[in-house]
Amino acid sequence: MAFRAPPLNGFYCRRNPMVFFRAFASVVSPPSKAVVYERHGPPDEVTRVIDLPPVELKEHDICVKMLAAPINPSDINRIEGVYPVRPPVPAIGGYEGVGEIQALGSAVRGLSLGDWVIPSPPSFGTWQTYIVKEESVWHKIDKDVPMEFSATVTVNPLTALRMLEDFVKLVPGDAIVQNGATSIVGQCIIQLARIRGIRSINIIRDRVGSEEAKEKLKGLGADEVFTESQLEVKNVKDLLGVLPEPALGFNCVGGNPASLVLKFLRQGGTMVTYGGMAKKPITVSTSSFIFKDLALRGFWLQKLMSTENAKDCRVMIDYLLSLVCDGSFKYELEMVPFKDFNVALDRALGKLGSHPKQVIKF
Amino acid sequence: MAFRAPPLNGFYCRRNPMVFFRAFASVVSPPSKAVVYERHGPPDEVTRVIDLPPVELKEHDICVKMLAAPINPSDINRIEGVYPVRPPVPAIGGYEGVGEIQALGSAVRGLSLGDWVIPSPPSFGTWQTYIVKEESVWHKIDKDVPMEFSATVTVNPLTALRMLEDFVKLVPGDAIVQNGATSIVGQCIIQLARIRGIRSINIIRDRVGSEEAKEKLKGLGADEVFTESQLEVKNVKDLLGVLPEPALGFNCVGGNPASLVLKFLRQGGTMVTYGGMAKKPITVSTSSFIFKDLALRGFWLQKLMSTENAKDCRVMIDYLLSLVCDGSFKYELEMVPFKDFNVALDRALGKLGSHPKQVIKF
Repeated sequence: MAFRAPPLNGFYCRRNPMVFFRAFASVVSPPSKAVVYERHGPPDEVTRVIDLPPVELKEHDICVKMLAAPINPSDINRIEGVYPVRPPVPAIGGYEGVGEIQALGSAVRGLSLGDWVIPSPPSFGTWQTYIVKEESVWHKIDKDVPMEFSATVTVNPLTALRMLEDFVKLVPGDAIVQNGATSIVGQCIIQLARIRGIRSINIIRDRVGSEEAKEKLKGLGADEVFTESQLEVKNVKDLLGVLPEPALGFNCVGGNPASLVLKFLRQGGTMVTYGGMAKKPITVSTSSFIFKDLALRGFWLQKLMSTENAKDCRVMIDYLLSLVCDGSFKYELEMVPFKDFNVALDRALGKLGSHPKQVIKF
Repeated sequence: MAFRAPPLNGFYCRRNPMVFFRAFASVVSPPSKAVVYERHGPPDEVTRVIDLPPVELKEHDICVKMLAAPINPSDINRIEGVYPVRPPVPAIGGYEGVGEIQALGSAVRGLSLGDWVIPSPPSFGTWQTYIVKEESVWHKIDKDVPMEFSATVTVNPLTALRMLEDFVKLVPGDAIVQNGATSIVGQCIIQLARIRGIRSINIIRDRVGSEEAKEKLKGLGADEVFTESQLEVKNVKDLLGVLPEPALGFNCVGGNPASLVLKFLRQGGTMVTYGGMAKKPITVSTSSFIFKDLALRGFWLQKLMSTENAKDCRVMIDYLLSLVCDGSFKYELEMVPFKDFNVALDRALGKLGSHPKQVIKF
């Protein structure tokens, strides 16, 4: 199947071919280079970079010149076709990113040329050089924040913040426990907990370099970091020392590491699952529910974004970017020029060893 | 270890030996026959019936002549020593029951001789002929209700009612799903749902007589009853017909029957675990939490009774007994004279084939 370009107002529009004749009086975007896929499959096989023709701006539209956009695991899953919600193919890759306003429709009032904006809620198709979307899609952000953080603030840091806020009311001195603590969400949770005076108990895989990983997480503010093998003890709570039993746990692995989070939780505690890196289910004893009164929940940012709770997200994003700005919040990213998209993709797919999250720089 | 009788005010009191001298001016209970166990172990080995000496009533005490008390599975687990909260041994068996007021302390104002009462919250030691406890322990109930229902209203029917009320707000036309539907809690859920206009989807074991069990549950108001083997299909929801996807599920089995409850639940649904008859854990996929947004919780009546939510329970018990009285709520019980306690216990232990719940009649 050939790639069908989006409706191109001003040049050719399936909805209204007459638009062509109005083109000369309208604002039109530059042509865009985009990473597209026409069918689902291995991303390094099904994606290619193509040129898309210019798009006419309707009166409330904004044309954004993209500056940077990350390759998140969920982007890969969407291209593979295994993510439950995904755009119909053919589609342009990407779900978040940052750009600069290049052109405005005639009725746009709230934003100006040169503003830096992110799509919020995030939306499909950020892997392209120019995007035309309605004003309401775009959220203006502070240009002082390095673009790689603005480009990545939604999918990982916002997940961390919402998970800390939405499930259990924590107060300074409380503790949380998490597995997969070296992930970006994990690093964000450690730092956001530290900023709130909340202690963090962190579980990481046993692997070469786990001692360095521990030190790195402690440098971010982790109170305790255990490898899974350190937790093969009769009662993990004996390892807590002065830390309180955690009321809230986060699981992005599944299998035994999820059980380890459950073991740490206090009576009445909640575990929130937001990922399944081990591709293994979560197994829970009956008595954990009845006598320990544990609650198991799930978190999915994309679902949240479709609810009315989404309205707080822009405020939260501003807060997160202000933390980046004042130096109290960070995570590792690697910028790659758009021309080397294939290299960035191979790194994101794990084909080239261990790399930080890849951020395409347009 | 010998059985130590409880402190016997009026005859010998370890707390205050001087009480002896006041005995002749005081109200004293009759001697009591009680089922006691001095150590944990198999109930048919460690329990015996003994005589306990009379007890002096303090001014706020009430002496209740027990009429009936059931043998619940949790009573058996307490005697076995496997229940997480249990009285220290030596102890008297039982946790709920009904009795008639036989004598009153001098300061009792709210209850009268001849009233029928239940301990509410329930409390340990109902397997005896006379109980002396403070007025506040006792809740007066309607004498028109057959005693076997008053004796058993708390542990099973109240569990069913609270589970229907406490987790998900249901409205008429909604549906629930449950496994272990032939249990007394299961039967109560079916009937309480029917009374509320809530549809019930019920899962039972494959066994000889499962067709009769289906008919019996449908007679109570079950909308659908499936055996586990009927649910070995690609999509259980195809079996729902006109019923809506359930927002709330109940699990008292664990293992695969718990997974069947999860499969029926709608997006955002909640499964409440209140038992583990299969002695197998509950296994849940990561995507059930993230993409289906399921929540897993637990229910334990004994815990609830220690919270401030317990205060509504007496109102709920009156409601449940009124339903029994008007004939819209029932379940099978078998009354056994106290002198045949050992037979009742053997039946409750499953040693004598299938029997309804055993209720000791004093």
